[in-house]
Amino acid sequence: MALIDGNLVARQILDEIKACVTTLSPLVPHVAFVRVGDDPASVSYVNKKQKTSEELGMKSSLHLFREDVSQEELFAQLDALNADATVHGILVQAPLPAHLDATLVFNRISPKKDVDGFTTTSIGRLVQEVPGAFAACTPAGIIELLKRSGAPTRGKHAVIVGRSLIVGKPVALMLVAKGLDATVTVCHSRTANLGAITREADILIAAIGRPRFITADMVREGAIVIDVGINRVPEASKKTGYRLVGDVDFDSVAPKAALITPVPGGVGPMTVAMLMQNTLHAALLSRNEAA
Amino acid sequence: MALIDGNLVARQILDEIKACVTTLSPLVPHVAFVRVGDDPASVSYVNKKQKTSEELGMKSSLHLFREDVSQEELFAQLDALNADATVHGILVQAPLPAHLDATLVFNRISPKKDVDGFTTTSIGRLVQEVPGAFAACTPAGIIELLKRSGAPTRGKHAVIVGRSLIVGKPVALMLVAKGLDATVTVCHSRTANLGAITREADILIAAIGRPRFITADMVREGAIVIDVGINRVPEASKKTGYRLVGDVDFDSVAPKAALITPVPGGVGPMTVAMLMQNTLHAALLSRNEAA
Repeated sequence: MALIDGNLVARQILDEIKACVTTLSPLVPHVAFVRVGDDPASVSYVNKKQKTSEELGMKSSLHLFREDVSQEELFAQLDALNADATVHGILVQAPLPAHLDATLVFNRISPKKDVDGFTTTSIGRLVQEVPGAFAACTPAGIIELLKRSGAPTRGKHAVIVGRSLIVGKPVALMLVAKGLDATVTVCHSRTANLGAITREADILIAAIGRPRFITADMVREGAIVIDVGINRVPEASKKTGYRLVGDVDFDSVAPKAALITPVPGGVGPMTVAMLMQNTLHAALLSRNEAA
Repeated sequence: MALIDGNLVARQILDEIKACVTTLSPLVPHVAFVRVGDDPASVSYVNKKQKTSEELGMKSSLHLFREDVSQEELFAQLDALNADATVHGILVQAPLPAHLDATLVFNRISPKKDVDGFTTTSIGRLVQEVPGAFAACTPAGIIELLKRSGAPTRGKHAVIVGRSLIVGKPVALMLVAKGLDATVTVCHSRTANLGAITREADILIAAIGRPRFITADMVREGAIVIDVGINRVPEASKKTGYRLVGDVDFDSVAPKAALITPVPGGVGPMTVAMLMQNTLHAALLSRNEAA
């Protein structure tokens, strides 16, 4: 068993981006963050993303709205950011309050600046295999982890547990596309005989949000296991009262896996790295279009 | 073994649409066909679609262009059709000549009139499970055939052979979506051990364009088999010199299958029926928006 070190891989990618950013002067990639309300997780995510972008020599800006912001007000901000040629990427931090239609809000972002990959256009382009389509950061991070771990995908059977719009479906679309060429199975809560299917996986991707759901008996000896789950489980000995665990029962699965991502420190750090990569691409795109 | 009679099912659907169209007066659903060049198959497909729409009491119009039409000229026509409130659906017959960018041309169609389901927006909405998204007619026809044959999909394992943008990927997305809830595997030319995977299928969908490729040894006893292939194979005894066969070796597979579609007379007739259904929906959508 070997561990896929997401922190290490993410660090490599960030260093590459940083090196590239320095060559772009006077162009400074600029990502605009839009946050609604003060959900502590959202505050923390946006802070982390802003800090990273600045560390890479990018510019970031933060646009804050109250929890009860109207859709019109939010749209006006997004329209202004779309129109601002110095802004290359726009990220609206999810989740949004229930009174806002998240799909409408995401779709207000120009597809050229959709660094989070959540617009209908970006998702459609992913299906169409349009080169350079912005992919959502978590599935893009999974693909990059596989590539940089030297994990072959062509003709391999990738089994994805979870059919969400932000992980399961896009990662399935990316793996089955030409170039990666995996055979892809998508399982979910309605799947019969789940274990029989997951045991067929050369590459097993768990993205269901159920702590330690994938146990050793569900995994083939020598499989590559990517754990996308981030679940809090109570743990009295921790100061916080909880610890983070993945969707994979790491202790029992790791000995069988050829490669496995830990939680934390696996897919998580890749998400921010992919956002930075998308922002860099958006900036290059805007420069090429201006030229 | 029972045969799924696509002609019969398509006829039922067309009758339902016809009955609905008569209740809409004075609204007359109108589908506009755009054809470039004189490819005999395209001429024949468009004729068939026009005839069917008129038989249902819909209006159709035909916009012909020479093989060497410029993109600008085609765009001007599509813009005019988009702007015309009496036109509810627009179909540009594929394939297009190589000098035209098919994705750009399809994307010029307003998503509200995209009855062929080929715009990036329609495809993205399919992934997002947006209710009422226009689905491409062949995959939509497959789903409708399964539904009307009483074939259960929830928790069943659907294996799709073929990853094309017009059949394999959209039908996979539709089957895995909430409501249909199938476990879905997509195989293709790079898949290793294809037979082992297809033998796991409760529902096997062949969409690869290789005559009689799926043989009995690749099919589980009692599977539901949907054959999307339409291949011409030489046959001296036929006046035309060829006969049409599917991607499934019907003679050997049929005895093992619980349900199977023939070729011709299976999925084929459903495609036109689904186009008519999409046109009806587009007309209703436009009426609701005007109200």
